[in-house]
Amino acid sequence: MRFLFKDISEVYTPLQRIGEAAMAVEEGIIRWIGAADDLPETYRNWPGISLGNRGILPGLIDCHTHLVWGGNRLDEYTRRARGESYEEILEAGGGIYNTVMATRAASEDQLFSLALERAHHFLQEGVTTLEVKSGYGLEPEAELKMLRVVKRLDQHFRQRFFPTLLAHVVPREWDRVDYLRMFCNELIPTVARENLATAVDVFCDRGAFSIAETRKIFEAALDSGLAIKAHAEQLTHSGATRLVAEMKGLSADHLEQTTADDWRALALHGTVGTILPGATVILRKAFPDLGAMRDAGVALAVATDHNPGSSHLYSLMLCLQLASALGGLSVEEALASGTATAGRALGRPELGNLKVASPADFVVVDGPDALSPFYHWGKNCIKQVYVGGDLAWRVG
Amino acid sequence: MRFLFKDISEVYTPLQRIGEAAMAVEEGIIRWIGAADDLPETYRNWPGISLGNRGILPGLIDCHTHLVWGGNRLDEYTRRARGESYEEILEAGGGIYNTVMATRAASEDQLFSLALERAHHFLQEGVTTLEVKSGYGLEPEAELKMLRVVKRLDQHFRQRFFPTLLAHVVPREWDRVDYLRMFCNELIPTVARENLATAVDVFCDRGAFSIAETRKIFEAALDSGLAIKAHAEQLTHSGATRLVAEMKGLSADHLEQTTADDWRALALHGTVGTILPGATVILRKAFPDLGAMRDAGVALAVATDHNPGSSHLYSLMLCLQLASALGGLSVEEALASGTATAGRALGRPELGNLKVASPADFVVVDGPDALSPFYHWGKNCIKQVYVGGDLAWRVG
Repeated sequence: MRFLFKDISEVYTPLQRIGEAAMAVEEGIIRWIGAADDLPETYRNWPGISLGNRGILPGLIDCHTHLVWGGNRLDEYTRRARGESYEEILEAGGGIYNTVMATRAASEDQLFSLALERAHHFLQEGVTTLEVKSGYGLEPEAELKMLRVVKRLDQHFRQRFFPTLLAHVVPREWDRVDYLRMFCNELIPTVARENLATAVDVFCDRGAFSIAETRKIFEAALDSGLAIKAHAEQLTHSGATRLVAEMKGLSADHLEQTTADDWRALALHGTVGTILPGATVILRKAFPDLGAMRDAGVALAVATDHNPGSSHLYSLMLCLQLASALGGLSVEEALASGTATAGRALGRPELGNLKVASPADFVVVDGPDALSPFYHWGKNCIKQVYVGGDLAWRVG
Repeated sequence: MRFLFKDISEVYTPLQRIGEAAMAVEEGIIRWIGAADDLPETYRNWPGISLGNRGILPGLIDCHTHLVWGGNRLDEYTRRARGESYEEILEAGGGIYNTVMATRAASEDQLFSLALERAHHFLQEGVTTLEVKSGYGLEPEAELKMLRVVKRLDQHFRQRFFPTLLAHVVPREWDRVDYLRMFCNELIPTVARENLATAVDVFCDRGAFSIAETRKIFEAALDSGLAIKAHAEQLTHSGATRLVAEMKGLSADHLEQTTADDWRALALHGTVGTILPGATVILRKAFPDLGAMRDAGVALAVATDHNPGSSHLYSLMLCLQLASALGGLSVEEALASGTATAGRALGRPELGNLKVASPADFVVVDGPDALSPFYHWGKNCIKQVYVGGDLAWRVG
């Protein structure tokens, strides 16, 4: 299947801006992209698809989500907004255990149906690729159930999905040492053998895993051929950012409590720093200084952290806007953080750009200015979404 | 026309929460509202409308918008996000004059069509009432054109519109004294006589109007029987908050630079303080401490400040969420700030609640929890919108 996308008013990618462009796509892969006037003879009689003088952007990549969950935590949200502490709510049986109970109780089909509805919403907002973590099962069988849901999404829905096994917390009913042993010696090898995840993530913080435990889990993941990443320096400074960088991890995520030393480690090892504006804003934390991180050489991704407890947020574009307004990124930097750099955070540098040999994952904006979705806060400006050259969603 | 709205899982208003409710509406006015079990005999055989076991909220009220404008300022937004100052952009012919030129150049029909599309978007997000300001014409005829657009919206579209004449800046081509004289002696009386506005607003700040000029405009407005309000203490501390409070104005808006003295004046005179999270966040200013303002007795409204320069933002719900997360309001307080208190800021205390003798302006949420739109960031959870008892919008 060959198509020539034409009547593109503007292509805006982290690499370049092209006015009056055309793009030739074969079997879902970009074969040529450039100014329409420069289109080589070879592609001129490929079947044409007019994009109606609209701008296009690379498909957005959400490189940190917890898309699979049961229940909801509206009640907790209203209580916290009134000033109750998370610790009080946790002791009253709320917090993460609320979601763990609801996720364990839900069948795989129910979880699939809930996650599919959310994925569809993300698609409408231009997200063509999502990372999705386990971590609300805790028990091995419930963790595998979550990962099978992500696998079904990848097989049956229109976006690209990257499943991650998350070591979230030690469940109350387990001994700490036993759980760690099970996680490293049984769960990780099973997940790797059954191709249920491409990476392992550890929540390294107060109340979750220590830095020593995190290192053990990372070693087991690397032994099984899986990539590693971390929930790092969100609530306290644990040292996870430097650990994951030194162990050549894909990304360190959250980073609210990071220091200049942490940033240097990320820059040195090429580990992406992933910023999660939803959790920062909803938990009422100080927003990290993204300009300083960028100036320290950190490659910054931005993601939704979609989850029911701290970032019940459905719009990656809103996160990119918040990263610009509250964190100090330019619009062009925000674009890169939600496309090419997010692709790097998944270990897939070919995603998130529109260039020869990349998949034709792109969004068509509802006007000639490709960057207009960044300007229109709280309004979806996406008209069509293509994944691998196929129309995956359109307005109306 | 009489209707009994039933199968309401929950009514949440600034006054009360009612579970398993019913509401009787006659000629667009609420005649009875309460627990379904307590429904008086009188209303039981009114024609019923089932809301399908869903929650309802009062229709949202956006009490500060600049909905009528031509052109767009995406280019300015990207330049400012890269670090250019507003002053540099203004000197290069950008900033407000960009919008003034485009608004003057547009016909009344063109402006109506643009504003209608925006109003329709706001309706889908549950906004049943909007205040809309002039202020991008500057020349008297262009100001009147903008206000006629708002009048047409009010007459022909489904929401309630409250037009406000805004003294925005002195246009470059006018002498300052002449403009002020024209504004007070000609424009305000004309607008009052032709019923083109219910209030006069003054942008009292550096580069706009001084406190002495603001007082003169307010006096002219009050002489013509119009209410007054102010853009107060946004960029600098001008004293406009205290002035508008002492002159019994409806509201003082922005308030980023206000002090505890200003808050006391607002509380003392019952003038509403209107917070505009879009402009605060997009202009990268420090968010005001809404908890401290509330504790000082200020009645707080929250609005979008929708405009092309500093708050190109289309979602009042997002503003309410930001006011809670960044400003410290509870969810219940955020609800009041976008409903009943916003109604007070328009001089219409009967709006923004669901109580006997109030208009039946309400939104039906897509599930049983009436507060769920506050929980779901970046996703519209409104299923139906009623204005004056009539279905004004529904999903799909």
